[in-house]
Amino acid sequence: MRPLDLRSDTVTQPSPEMRAAMAAAEVGDDVLEHDPTLARLEGRVAELLGLEAALWVPSGCMGNLIALMMHLGRGDRFLAPAQAHVLGSELGTAAWLAGGMPEALAWDAGPGRPTPAQVTKAAGSPGPYYTLQTKLLCLENTHNFAGGAVIPRAEHRALVAAAKAAKLAVHLDGARIWHAAAAQNLPPSALTEGVDTVQVCLSKGLGAPMGSLVCGTKAAMVEARRLRKMLGGGVRQGGVIGAAGLVALDYLPRIPEDHAKARALAEGLRAFGVAAPTPETNILLLPVADAPTAAAALEAAGVRASIVGPALRFIAHRDLTDADIVEALRRIEPLAKLLGAA
Amino acid sequence: MRPLDLRSDTVTQPSPEMRAAMAAAEVGDDVLEHDPTLARLEGRVAELLGLEAALWVPSGCMGNLIALMMHLGRGDRFLAPAQAHVLGSELGTAAWLAGGMPEALAWDAGPGRPTPAQVTKAAGSPGPYYTLQTKLLCLENTHNFAGGAVIPRAEHRALVAAAKAAKLAVHLDGARIWHAAAAQNLPPSALTEGVDTVQVCLSKGLGAPMGSLVCGTKAAMVEARRLRKMLGGGVRQGGVIGAAGLVALDYLPRIPEDHAKARALAEGLRAFGVAAPTPETNILLLPVADAPTAAAALEAAGVRASIVGPALRFIAHRDLTDADIVEALRRIEPLAKLLGAA
Amino acid sequence: MRPLDLRSDTVTQPSPEMRAAMAAAEVGDDVLEHDPTLARLEGRVAELLGLEAALWVPSGCMGNLIALMMHLGRGDRFLAPAQAHVLGSELGTAAWLAGGMPEALAWDAGPGRPTPAQVTKAAGSPGPYYTLQTKLLCLENTHNFAGGAVIPRAEHRALVAAAKAAKLAVHLDGARIWHAAAAQNLPPSALTEGVDTVQVCLSKGLGAPMGSLVCGTKAAMVEARRLRKMLGGGVRQGGVIGAAGLVALDYLPRIPEDHAKARALAEGLRAFGVAAPTPETNILLLPVADAPTAAAALEAAGVRASIVGPALRFIAHRDLTDADIVEALRRIEPLAKLLGAA
Amino acid sequence: MRPLDLRSDTVTQPSPEMRAAMAAAEVGDDVLEHDPTLARLEGRVAELLGLEAALWVPSGCMGNLIALMMHLGRGDRFLAPAQAHVLGSELGTAAWLAGGMPEALAWDAGPGRPTPAQVTKAAGSPGPYYTLQTKLLCLENTHNFAGGAVIPRAEHRALVAAAKAAKLAVHLDGARIWHAAAAQNLPPSALTEGVDTVQVCLSKGLGAPMGSLVCGTKAAMVEARRLRKMLGGGVRQGGVIGAAGLVALDYLPRIPEDHAKARALAEGLRAFGVAAPTPETNILLLPVADAPTAAAALEAAGVRASIVGPALRFIAHRDLTDADIVEALRRIEPLAKLLGAA
Repeated sequence: MRPLDLRSDTVTQPSPEMRAAMAAAEVGDDVLEHDPTLARLEGRVAELLGLEAALWVPSGCMGNLIALMMHLGRGDRFLAPAQAHVLGSELGTAAWLAGGMPEALAWDAGPGRPTPAQVTKAAGSPGPYYTLQTKLLCLENTHNFAGGAVIPRAEHRALVAAAKAAKLAVHLDGARIWHAAAAQNLPPSALTEGVDTVQVCLSKGLGAPMGSLVCGTKAAMVEARRLRKMLGGGVRQGGVIGAAGLVALDYLPRIPEDHAKARALAEGLRAFGVAAPTPETNILLLPVADAPTAAAALEAAGVRASIVGPALRFIAHRDLTDADIVEALRRIEPLAKLLGAA
Repeated sequence: MRPLDLRSDTVTQPSPEMRAAMAAAEVGDDVLEHDPTLARLEGRVAELLGLEAALWVPSGCMGNLIALMMHLGRGDRFLAPAQAHVLGSELGTAAWLAGGMPEALAWDAGPGRPTPAQVTKAAGSPGPYYTLQTKLLCLENTHNFAGGAVIPRAEHRALVAAAKAAKLAVHLDGARIWHAAAAQNLPPSALTEGVDTVQVCLSKGLGAPMGSLVCGTKAAMVEARRLRKMLGGGVRQGGVIGAAGLVALDYLPRIPEDHAKARALAEGLRAFGVAAPTPETNILLLPVADAPTAAAALEAAGVRASIVGPALRFIAHRDLTDADIVEALRRIEPLAKLLGAA
Repeated sequence: MRPLDLRSDTVTQPSPEMRAAMAAAEVGDDVLEHDPTLARLEGRVAELLGLEAALWVPSGCMGNLIALMMHLGRGDRFLAPAQAHVLGSELGTAAWLAGGMPEALAWDAGPGRPTPAQVTKAAGSPGPYYTLQTKLLCLENTHNFAGGAVIPRAEHRALVAAAKAAKLAVHLDGARIWHAAAAQNLPPSALTEGVDTVQVCLSKGLGAPMGSLVCGTKAAMVEARRLRKMLGGGVRQGGVIGAAGLVALDYLPRIPEDHAKARALAEGLRAFGVAAPTPETNILLLPVADAPTAAAALEAAGVRASIVGPALRFIAHRDLTDADIVEALRRIEPLAKLLGAA
Repeated sequence: MRPLDLRSDTVTQPSPEMRAAMAAAEVGDDVLEHDPTLARLEGRVAELLGLEAALWVPSGCMGNLIALMMHLGRGDRFLAPAQAHVLGSELGTAAWLAGGMPEALAWDAGPGRPTPAQVTKAAGSPGPYYTLQTKLLCLENTHNFAGGAVIPRAEHRALVAAAKAAKLAVHLDGARIWHAAAAQNLPPSALTEGVDTVQVCLSKGLGAPMGSLVCGTKAAMVEARRLRKMLGGGVRQGGVIGAAGLVALDYLPRIPEDHAKARALAEGLRAFGVAAPTPETNILLLPVADAPTAAAALEAAGVRASIVGPALRFIAHRDLTDADIVEALRRIEPLAKLLGAA
């Protein structure tokens, strides 16, 4: 029995088109000069996001880290929604390496979403020399641990406006900005308005074997390139990976299919009496009584899910078909009680 | 008109006894060997706290920082009550210098106090290699920005037990442990049970011109001494300050007088129609509509208070007499409306 | 005119075999579990080096950095030969990120090579608590900026013995250990005796588009994997690159050809009256009177070289044929005066 | 037998005048505002040094560290003479905490003194984005481990000029600038020309129980004050120490007496056949065959010296009289062979 892997949208296999593109990629030494395929990828992503420039990095963690290193000085405070990836899922680098003191904002506006008023209040006003300076608002759209929650465009604008009024820089962790845009039927550039930097990921949902991009002004990307080298992310003929990334972007129009799969999964669960919420995008977060036991039972039945605190996380992605979702539900049904069915 | 300074209990002048002790102190080079007066002070404080050893440091910030540096590795998570001094009042050093990723615990048990269940939940269980490790619980007793709030002894024990069960180290920011002990009519050692390290302050409330101590096992203090030198806190004939610290400890039996002054201030304010809470110790935190305006008006009237977020903070201390509190109230009365009087 | 690129052995294009291997690679999510092709690559490299385990990293900089992070505590001193890559070519990360205070050892034993006595003397003996602790010897074989200089096996052993006697850990920057081994007609494992960690590179000389490995004990690699994630070097289907790395290792038996090309270049230059030294491996370092001018003139003539301080650096590699060397010499000849010919 | 302590000029006891001044000091809270006595001390030192402003810090290590933190970004290279205090005697903080990658300059101009040409060469010219940036020259005058060696005024000017031409900032570790000035019969301000920051010490040679100052522009001192708070060096009624510092400055005209004592010691040793060099200031560095054995024998005879690598270090200071030097020589004479006498 082939396991159906819903742990993450990072588990996808590179497509035949990606493999062919990697084999045929035009490449150069990206430390000494600019690998031509990475240059093309960076140009295309910058354009998609409506920003001046972009820089390929091996991972989303490095992209977020580089951005935070640019925005924060020693001990500067930054604001992020509670359970943001930069707070809990990047091994503390925002603190120990970028030097930031975080302030987590509760989700007063909805899952994963603080209100502009919270930003204003948390930013405060400048105090005496011996007080923390708040310098950055870090947003996350979609918000992974809020279940792929979307920040609507109008809220994004209002949050950025509040940050700017308080003289904060804004970084957007847009690892899944593609899904936030698709959910609102908007281009990704509609969700980067006013941000200073954004990180987007090619291996989450889009299927590239690795790689993210950090984006911003041309000047910021010059600094980002130096920081990337510091952290060990400068590579040579990176175009072989960049070529896969360019192909991965072709998946963008099909993101809504993944959202539909996630909704189908939720509907199927509800049909079994499981109180599954309706996913906003491709992530279904399902609180259960005993996550480790439930995950193990699912695994034994051929369905793989992640444990996120007291919940199971299912993520739909391009390597799962509609039929796979049907089959997953068939496998899950006998275990519905473990998922809270009455 | 002499201003009555209630901004902090750090504003006290060294007493004549302290000045005489400084002039007469027996001293030596505390980098090359052990200054005899600092050694005596360290011994006396360790005994008061029921711990093996203590180390003098120039400030409470350095004491907390050294403790966190000992407990935390790169990016380790630590728990602290919301608005703890280590989170918001030490220029982010817990993050950028000690390398910790903080998780603020809400005050579910009362002002400044998380519950043991919160500690257990936040500590979580060990995850895969790519997840944060929670390593430390940092308590604060009394909790400054919760208005000098006390953690009762039984709660302290339960919090420490929860931390130990989750294999967390425990550091106690006991800058005002003297007040927490006095409020419960306990010796300070009753409030250090189970902690790995504690920081106590001689210049907050006790009147020493400077200096704190970090305390723990003998082995920990060997490491702390090295870290103190790194940070630039190694001094030579520090006994001149240590002598003042020894005298400052003589004030311990009189701490309840400061609590009484704070309560008298609160009662006086209530008599003017101001909704002042009853202080647990020597700190009165008074939420007001417009703190900067209120503070400025008080200053003009000869009463100095601090601004703490949306509140004014008044701290009673040894340089204020009971008559000073009466006089302060006399000066405040015309401004009662600014403090929220109906 | 196709430029002949001798700036570095990192400029090579992936071979058709590598491209085919990338296209066909068996892959998995290397963050969540272990990508099978990376696992195979890591196993093969560990075996080649005679060490327990290995971990793929995107770059040699990250490999060295991870090793130094494992060996050094805050402010620990480490020893490295003058002009080592970790000192001058990794953007200071050994200091600011790994926390080490370097001590550069002069080349008393020959180009790039300190003597064991220097190691013993620099390591010193443990001092009081307020003194630096020397914890690590970092070797580099071959030594890039000493002109690809080789540490002979017997010297390696003696240096390691001196380090161990002084209780130092040993890290070997073996980015070009392949060349050091080939020059002595030894297997690479003969040059890792006694080291705690080693970094080897697949994109320098071997032709892989990117990637290095850090190697050591199994336990060390568990820690290294966590540090790699911290720095942003954890990738998903990294096997696509790992597959190219496996093919790159097939070039090992042909390394002597690159040494021969470098010697041929040197001989040709001497025939023009240029005082070129005989390269020990694939790197020719040629001191010139005015490196920027000489490099620009060469570039205009279709030969690319690097500037390394007051010298030009030519590196032979797999993408240059013997005929290319002949052609390079033909292009250089008219410029021989700029290279110091009488 | 009272031991004669020549280990360091930090071992001095505060004088009766200092003790009286501490007892009488006018003080205030130096975190919340500016302690009046510290303010006076800072003003007087700034004036002595010909700089705009100064800031008291608990130790010279903290003063140097703050300066380096201001001048260096992540991984920036700085130049310092070999064996500088910031390199070997501050627990690596220049690297791990200030983030600098050091380059030690050999003493081509004399003990402790690099040449301007070395500065120019080491500074190099700006390279591509992936190369180290050299940002700072750190001088030390007098140079402790070169035996209290003086940088003559003309050399200081030439070194600073070389640094400025290479766009480097200049920090002067002037812990004993008093001695460098006295040796040249110059005011201290003659030796700070062109520097951006300087650290001077009140507890080395001048007799204060603790404290140094970091000095520079007014704007730099605003930043330095914030950094001091970060590191835990912000104190409250610091004026009690500041008062001792003001008295310590009265010793400046008597520094030549300490130089004479050191010379008398050297002459006495030569009379015993010991090849002692003539001290430039108050430090005599005496290479011996077996420093630990020699130091232990001296200690047993009632003379205390430090071990500095393969040498003994004797430092003359205000708590030793001319008669004490005579007595020290009397005690040393029987041990002259251990000090190399023929």
